[in-house]
Amino acid sequence: MKHGGDLTEAIARHGGEPADWLDLSTGINPWPWTIPHPIPGSAWTRLPSRADEQDLLAAAREAYGAPDDAGIAAAAGTQTLIQWIPYLAGPGAVAIVTPTYGEHSAAWSSGGREIIAVNDLSALPERAVHAVVVSPNNPDGRVTDGEALRRTAERLDRRGGWLVVDEAFADVDPGVSAAAMSAELPILVLRSFGKFYGLAGLRLGFVIGRRDIVERIAAALGPWPVSGPALHLGTAALRDRSWADAMRAKLAREAKKLDHVLTAAGLQLVGGTTLFRLASHSDAPTLHAELARRHIWCRSLDGAREWLRFGLASDDGLNRLASALHSIK
Amino acid sequence: MKHGGDLTEAIARHGGEPADWLDLSTGINPWPWTIPHPIPGSAWTRLPSRADEQDLLAAAREAYGAPDDAGIAAAAGTQTLIQWIPYLAGPGAVAIVTPTYGEHSAAWSSGGREIIAVNDLSALPERAVHAVVVSPNNPDGRVTDGEALRRTAERLDRRGGWLVVDEAFADVDPGVSAAAMSAELPILVLRSFGKFYGLAGLRLGFVIGRRDIVERIAAALGPWPVSGPALHLGTAALRDRSWADAMRAKLAREAKKLDHVLTAAGLQLVGGTTLFRLASHSDAPTLHAELARRHIWCRSLDGAREWLRFGLASDDGLNRLASALHSIK
Repeated sequence: MKHGGDLTEAIARHGGEPADWLDLSTGINPWPWTIPHPIPGSAWTRLPSRADEQDLLAAAREAYGAPDDAGIAAAAGTQTLIQWIPYLAGPGAVAIVTPTYGEHSAAWSSGGREIIAVNDLSALPERAVHAVVVSPNNPDGRVTDGEALRRTAERLDRRGGWLVVDEAFADVDPGVSAAAMSAELPILVLRSFGKFYGLAGLRLGFVIGRRDIVERIAAALGPWPVSGPALHLGTAALRDRSWADAMRAKLAREAKKLDHVLTAAGLQLVGGTTLFRLASHSDAPTLHAELARRHIWCRSLDGAREWLRFGLASDDGLNRLASALHSIK
Repeated sequence: MKHGGDLTEAIARHGGEPADWLDLSTGINPWPWTIPHPIPGSAWTRLPSRADEQDLLAAAREAYGAPDDAGIAAAAGTQTLIQWIPYLAGPGAVAIVTPTYGEHSAAWSSGGREIIAVNDLSALPERAVHAVVVSPNNPDGRVTDGEALRRTAERLDRRGGWLVVDEAFADVDPGVSAAAMSAELPILVLRSFGKFYGLAGLRLGFVIGRRDIVERIAAALGPWPVSGPALHLGTAALRDRSWADAMRAKLAREAKKLDHVLTAAGLQLVGGTTLFRLASHSDAPTLHAELARRHIWCRSLDGAREWLRFGLASDDGLNRLASALHSIK
């Protein structure tokens, strides 16, 4: 299973309709920011204006704590940024801290780059010109501390390289962000809008970094990189700081409830963020298949057969998961 | 003025609120396909599924007359495809049939390519490996016939090149499309959803072409290139063939009404499509400025000072334009 959040494969194998399934395969917040209706007609009909894009970027700069002298650009999802960066970075190999989200490796590979898997930024080999780290990491939640990021960025700067810090899940813990140091160093902070705000279908993401690098990325993205509805909703949601504060607290509570269900069923917690939990089980592939037979879809992970990743769920969903786990034991 | 459809600059210079302005600067249909409410919540909250993307591509294949053995991929607007193609095409210079939409040249230039401006595909120099033609052309409406496209594609194929045929305005005249020959030759047909369907804010576009080339482009775009709302609305709109047929007839009628207003005011028609009209005037810059003073925004064109491009408008809009033109004379 390459990605979470797509029931196409689950349904092909195990039947049912999308509405029958409890989808725990993603790290997307199941309590989305509420879309105010109606969305203005002009968001659909007109080309997004530069003025609207500037409003969005100002809201994102504030929400993500990007310094005034850093560059910031919006794209139709951070995935779009992940795709472009290998085509825009200077020549040389990339070190990727693994295990992690597979699309970084796929994109650099598709851009023709040598990929060096490393366990930690401190293990960066000499020939790595660029590096990628996901922090908090997906799937294990590991946070790379700011000093390690700074030291790595300084080293890569001397090689003409970039340090990509994918903060797709950093909204739940703003203190971990490297945004504050991205104006001075070749650090590209990626921020995903859809996960924390629970609006993954909107396709909205940001890159924060040194102005010259962000301008190069924005030029590659071209005009109108973000849809009108995403501009409209993104700006309003990113300004809604009280929602964000309350949601961080709620996600922490909900993650604890999920932990309880998982550990009560004999799984061991390995890590995660408050948007998903990583657990291990001695026979994870069988457990994954048995849950799927019951139309509960969690995330299996290539190369870590003992691991399963679970997204958050409503109380009904948690009860269903608990019953299913109980019936499998 | 680099693009139509953005009143930011117009308002900065001439004041007013967006709602005060009659925006004739785009080629976007002002009678959009009607968005059915509500859009399912899952289109916003979930990652778009492969099944939904396949439905969209099937609807687009049918609507655009793409052969079964051609490849087709969707992106967040054809602009996204225009941005990627220069980074994915084999090495070599590109010939662009000019005057035309400026973003082709900007993208190939940003991709580091030599650009050769040509007046016609028959004037292709030996060193041009790739070529770009917009058909019907923006701003003059010129259609490049199928035989010329085929001959050019065959020549470029021997050089390892691609022929990009931007059919952003071809919906109004489906007979002009090169889609039917795109499975066998290195022709990349670009289709814009937002213009004809009047939903430019949605950001949706397609590339149709030889399977191996389209697969390469789709790999560069990565997963989830199109938003959930665009998948949902695009699929429904592209299946609505009776709307499209009726709209083609309506646009032809409305374009005639606009022609009448323009010629009655002493402008000479130069060309266009039924989504926009190109007219010339002995003092076009002054006319553009005087219309702007009256908060009517048409499109001036770099490098063709005598030309102005006008989008379609409702009867009220046409009356306002006619009065303004009368008061300027």
